[in-house]
Amino acid sequence: MLSEFDLIKQYFVRPARAPQLQSRVQLGIGDDCALLGIAPGQSFAISSDMLVEGRHFFAGEDPRRLGHKSLAVNLSDLAAMGARPAGFTLALALPAADRDWLAGFSAGLFALADAHDCELIGGDTTKGPLNICITVFGEVVPGQALRRDAARPGDDIWISGTLGDARLALAGMRGEVALAPDAQRQAEARLHLPAPRVALGRLLAENGLARAAIDISDGLVGDLDHILERSGVGATLDIDALPAGPVLATCDIALRRNYAAAGGDDYELCFTAAPEQRAAILAAGAASGTPVTRVGRIDASPGLQLTDGQGAPLELRLAGFDHFGSQ
Amino acid sequence: MLSEFDLIKQYFVRPARAPQLQSRVQLGIGDDCALLGIAPGQSFAISSDMLVEGRHFFAGEDPRRLGHKSLAVNLSDLAAMGARPAGFTLALALPAADRDWLAGFSAGLFALADAHDCELIGGDTTKGPLNICITVFGEVVPGQALRRDAARPGDDIWISGTLGDARLALAGMRGEVALAPDAQRQAEARLHLPAPRVALGRLLAENGLARAAIDISDGLVGDLDHILERSGVGATLDIDALPAGPVLATCDIALRRNYAAAGGDDYELCFTAAPEQRAAILAAGAASGTPVTRVGRIDASPGLQLTDGQGAPLELRLAGFDHFGSQ
Repeated sequence: MLSEFDLIKQYFVRPARAPQLQSRVQLGIGDDCALLGIAPGQSFAISSDMLVEGRHFFAGEDPRRLGHKSLAVNLSDLAAMGARPAGFTLALALPAADRDWLAGFSAGLFALADAHDCELIGGDTTKGPLNICITVFGEVVPGQALRRDAARPGDDIWISGTLGDARLALAGMRGEVALAPDAQRQAEARLHLPAPRVALGRLLAENGLARAAIDISDGLVGDLDHILERSGVGATLDIDALPAGPVLATCDIALRRNYAAAGGDDYELCFTAAPEQRAAILAAGAASGTPVTRVGRIDASPGLQLTDGQGAPLELRLAGFDHFGSQ
Repeated sequence: MLSEFDLIKQYFVRPARAPQLQSRVQLGIGDDCALLGIAPGQSFAISSDMLVEGRHFFAGEDPRRLGHKSLAVNLSDLAAMGARPAGFTLALALPAADRDWLAGFSAGLFALADAHDCELIGGDTTKGPLNICITVFGEVVPGQALRRDAARPGDDIWISGTLGDARLALAGMRGEVALAPDAQRQAEARLHLPAPRVALGRLLAENGLARAAIDISDGLVGDLDHILERSGVGATLDIDALPAGPVLATCDIALRRNYAAAGGDDYELCFTAAPEQRAAILAAGAASGTPVTRVGRIDASPGLQLTDGQGAPLELRLAGFDHFGSQ
């Protein structure tokens, strides 16, 4: 039987690596607390996400993909703040200490962590229904952080990457839509292996290009609404300007509009910026290898108006995701 | 039906309070990340604990006590580092959004948080088997932090408060021992409402009184062993010097020795210090309202020797708590 200490030692404590130039970790796994330093003038951006089997992922999900996604959704929160990843804690409840599962999970987790120089600094393991709770720490100059309450009337609304393929994959898995096997696989990659937009978020924050930002986890319309509410503004969104994922782009217009606007699980950034920043934002997108698309504008009057490609008002029945709702 | 957003708003977002003189929270609940600042020269001490129903507490546990304990076990990790509490995140999986449960849980949580000026800065709520994951942040000067690897031969070994009543309460609840109702209630208060030794930990660290420290969650012998292993030293522990809890003190010697030495769930501090600090440590105990007791010494040769009150070697069958073991 694998003990708790052996489990941590074998799968989560790694041999000392070449010291990272920017590492802030002063004391890692193995004490009562980790110690994380910070550069002068910076604050810690902190976010926590909990993933539950049967709610956020299906039972039997591939552990490597799950390791990736568990960290990715947290890094996406740092990206939406414009923060540089510094470290994370992992608390893990497992039904059993399964070696294959642990090897896969930790491999997926560390591959993404290493890609972002984000070190595992501590956490907890226990027996229980499968539950993965990650808390992530990033560095940001507080005045540069991309807050939800910073949108202003006249701002452009931008989206990174593409929307809707993750939701389409879920629909295919549930039998709600029928996709060709290749298309289903392609869409599922978006669902299981989201790419947090950390590089873009940092460029937007550190160069003062964007005002407000949020990451799109529950569907664009619902998430944008958080910006509107906290900023005390409204918005007009051109549904047909939304960048549909490559698989969703082959579907009919009703599905395309619905999943792009309210699909969920996209982990793209929605951000607002002054119109004079358009060229700089396109350049930041290019520099970070992240497509960026302008999809609407912030209005002074409250409420969210949806329009089609011709600017005509649209009424769509859309709903974001609520963990305690009926969905 | 209570939505996820309403749940957070009603039970976890509180009206703005008078600004705390020392508050480091620059941005709290409601954005992608919280922002936490830090004083110059300090580092963040960070710890995560996950509490699972049926594992760390019984189903149907009083939610107010559970709110207290969930934060207390994390504050205890800060105490063992000598850090000042600054804030925490809460990730919560709930089978249902039960108003009575939420009201009790949040009341217990915030009562302890306020007592330690430790603000809830963010988190996550989702539906799932009851699981409480808290990550806590404290401030500490890195050179003053009480690390597990800092014990030296010749150090005294000290214990805060008393040991064993929490384990005794559990034995009573399981029917392994029979206590009078009043005694059972008194012991259960230690199990359900541990008092993290934050004030003592800070005095020990900030005044350079202690070297190594750990909090006793899995049983003294097992937890002390982490100090010995990481410091490359051994120890001699006088079992009969261990300060048994007031209820345990009325039990027979075998139970007293066993539960004091390896009971678990005590959340007291075990720390080592040079003998010349004895008077200062007693004064720090008095200043923080925390009894402190000297119970042994650190040896150069590895291994843990247990002795009785006369210094004669003892062989006891003791085991710490392993979440994936057979206990």
